[in-house]
Amino acid sequence: MMTEQTIDRIRRFTADREWQQYHTPGNLAKSIAIEAAELLECFQWSDTEYDREHVKEELADVLVYCRNLLDELGLDEDEIVNAKMTKNEAKYPVEKARGKAEKYDRLG
Amino acid sequence: MMTEQTIDRIRRFTADREWQQYHTPGNLAKSIAIEAAELLECFQWSDTEYDREHVKEELADVLVYCRNLLDELGLDEDEIVNAKMTKNEAKYPVEKARGKAEKYDRLG
Amino acid sequence: MMTEQTIDRIRRFTADREWQQYHTPGNLAKSIAIEAAELLECFQWSDTEYDREHVKEELADVLVYCRNLLDELGLDEDEIVNAKMTKNEAKYPVEKARGKAEKYDRLG
Amino acid sequence: MMTEQTIDRIRRFTADREWQQYHTPGNLAKSIAIEAAELLECFQWSDTEYDREHVKEELADVLVYCRNLLDELGLDEDEIVNAKMTKNEAKYPVEKARGKAEKYDRLG
Repeated sequence: MMTEQTIDRIRRFTADREWQQYHTPGNLAKSIAIEAAELLECFQWSDTEYDREHVKEELADVLVYCRNLLDELGLDEDEIVNAKMTKNEAKYPVEKARGKAEKYDRLG
Repeated sequence: MMTEQTIDRIRRFTADREWQQYHTPGNLAKSIAIEAAELLECFQWSDTEYDREHVKEELADVLVYCRNLLDELGLDEDEIVNAKMTKNEAKYPVEKARGKAEKYDRLG
Repeated sequence: MMTEQTIDRIRRFTADREWQQYHTPGNLAKSIAIEAAELLECFQWSDTEYDREHVKEELADVLVYCRNLLDELGLDEDEIVNAKMTKNEAKYPVEKARGKAEKYDRLG
Repeated sequence: MMTEQTIDRIRRFTADREWQQYHTPGNLAKSIAIEAAELLECFQWSDTEYDREHVKEELADVLVYCRNLLDELGLDEDEIVNAKMTKNEAKYPVEKARGKAEKYDRLG
């Protein structure tokens, strides 16, 4: 999990560079999508052969921009994740979803 | 920050449904990119008018899949984020980067 | 529009490098998403200030991978686009959709 | 290839709904990325089992938004693709790239 110290470090990084002005929710959503695609690029031609160090960096980039968006919108990570997990648990009942990757609306 | 209890909840959600078999690193990277695009969709036509509740759900989806990938690869979130922040701080020196959104390799 | 000559050039490019082996539908879908994100990166921090030459290159990359996927799946571009336009026209009736960016399922 | 008639149909679709106002280059780049991720979703959990009809629709969506962006920027598809192919051919010389998926800067 990300410690408060790390969260502070991310905030200080942005503040020191006066980059809050660029951190609109829309720009951060773009940034998360851009970094997610760079992470995906680690697996572009193979699912099994990938550069672990590169994956770590790109995943970290996604997480940092997610942190920025949480801050920008004043959201509590634990709260929004738990709210979504409550929805997911209801949407994918264990007995129906077990061992199946189908989308919930196709689960019979 | 995401608590250990929430991380356990995410892990149990996957284990109960026997979905680890689908959670290859490559599939999870795809999933992060897919959810990041759903988050982006909240801002498709406007940066300023967006559905905050929808944003919370899509951001949570990104975070849950990031958690799945951390688990799958046995990574420590705090460690990879701090390693990347060390790189970012070196790449974007405060005096050069202040107030500029340019990519680091264009900073004069 | 892309001429037959250009389509041939793209096919030859792949064949000469023996890259068909990497061009599974799934890998090409990843590639389209990756290039689409590089296109998006041109607009990461601003909608109005962008490098037109860079945009042209990234858009071309998206189009080339789309061409690869059409070829891999044996699809006719004109046919699938017209089939989708028929759906879009039905989904977004002019009188309801005029001047509104809402998703079709929210159009009253 | 997309015929002039189809291109006209796409333009009329936008014009009839007065949607040009939303078609800024930045919004269209987001739209391409969003549709590319929906295409990717067809392959989220499997590379080999996918719904061909769904793939056709999502690929068509990507192509339509690419057409919108070409129009918005006044670009000629054939010209930008050929310009990029000239670059790609130089970047990936046949003798070095044959049978290898590595990025050009790693080709020895």
